[in-house]
Amino acid sequence: MSTTRRKLLRCAGVAGGSIARFSGPLVAAAADPSGFLEVFARRQTVRRYKSDPVPDEHVRQILDAARRGPTCMNQQPWKFLVVRDRARIDAMKKRAFELLVPRIEAAARSKQMPAAEIENRKAQALRFTEGYFTAPVYVVVLVDSESSCSSYALMHDGPIAAGYLMLAARAFGYGTAYLTDGIPDEVTRDVLAIPKRYQRICVTPIGVPDRWPAQARKRKLEEMIAYETLEGHAPLQPVPYNP
Amino acid sequence: MSTTRRKLLRCAGVAGGSIARFSGPLVAAAADPSGFLEVFARRQTVRRYKSDPVPDEHVRQILDAARRGPTCMNQQPWKFLVVRDRARIDAMKKRAFELLVPRIEAAARSKQMPAAEIENRKAQALRFTEGYFTAPVYVVVLVDSESSCSSYALMHDGPIAAGYLMLAARAFGYGTAYLTDGIPDEVTRDVLAIPKRYQRICVTPIGVPDRWPAQARKRKLEEMIAYETLEGHAPLQPVPYNP
Repeated sequence: MSTTRRKLLRCAGVAGGSIARFSGPLVAAAADPSGFLEVFARRQTVRRYKSDPVPDEHVRQILDAARRGPTCMNQQPWKFLVVRDRARIDAMKKRAFELLVPRIEAAARSKQMPAAEIENRKAQALRFTEGYFTAPVYVVVLVDSESSCSSYALMHDGPIAAGYLMLAARAFGYGTAYLTDGIPDEVTRDVLAIPKRYQRICVTPIGVPDRWPAQARKRKLEEMIAYETLEGHAPLQPVPYNP
Repeated sequence: MSTTRRKLLRCAGVAGGSIARFSGPLVAAAADPSGFLEVFARRQTVRRYKSDPVPDEHVRQILDAARRGPTCMNQQPWKFLVVRDRARIDAMKKRAFELLVPRIEAAARSKQMPAAEIENRKAQALRFTEGYFTAPVYVVVLVDSESSCSSYALMHDGPIAAGYLMLAARAFGYGTAYLTDGIPDEVTRDVLAIPKRYQRICVTPIGVPDRWPAQARKRKLEEMIAYETLEGHAPLQPVPYNP
């Protein structure tokens, strides 16, 4: 094995030599994984992008990482639809605005918000939507509803792969955003003519962030970890939303 | 910034200096993320463990990575229940066997399998179950059904965090297994007295693998990536299950 290869493996917290299998006491041998864990901590939702290019080879490597998650019965039920065509992206943006404006207004009305608050919410949502469509490339993460474990594909395999995608993109220095309602399902389904067979998990832009946003407020880790029993462990309190 | 810190960030594919924010062209600056991506490729389902200890500090760091995934409205709706007590683990094992044996038999009968095939399946499932309970520590990944985005917590935030957990554990040199039916929900719910409020995503052992299994058969990446449209893109064919 080359020194570079060994160094890379060490960087990734993977000790020793062979890719095929380890030998010896793994924990003792495992290198410091802090560099690896740092990437998790730095993944954030990015809501506006630069137009800097994202090479196809990067997208491919990111998707190669995305598909390494566990899957029910090893079915690997994913389709990753990669969109770069500006006409398609603009059509999605147009459709997203058409759908979102009345939805935001209806939601605000149903909560009986003051008019000024409705306008605030609307302005924020529209600014976000505008920003989501500034990236050079989009990936629609889909699962196959005809796979032999289709409910697990939807509930587990799909979200895991989308989460891996975001982490791998971060390792390349790209931002992403796990969008569900942010770009409604109908937008990608209609504009990209996605067959019924495929269920969407999310759509994400991939691109160089316009800027890295400040870290979102995080709970104390202690609120989320219980040892041996949940008895006496305080329930979670809602986190005020402040994107 | 110390040289070590800079090196770690470089290892993680994160270029330059400040944790708070980047400046300059990120992609050009991003270091080679191969070491990072290697960890994804090496995560595998591990079905038997050594009794080597897994320090609390590792579990904590693994969970600190798990909770870095995107969450609906930043609610971070997770509870991670960590179990090390051998009496509890043994009780779960006992309950798992009680539940699984009749289930496997019923499933096999409903598919009208030959008796020998039923016995084979049963033997495999029991061997797996036996192996799942050889680890020194277990994490039950739960989401709060009373969070303000509870359906997203179940469908997205939960599985993403569980997937991140497995990747982070791999960076430490540990194996995991994303278990749903493998250790039925009733097992952890009853033995660990998990309140109804929390919905289980999965349970996973964390431990040093008895051995790293051979890589599961992977689809060609091309089967899963489509560009611009799914029209004319071949549907996925089932993967023969061969754990």
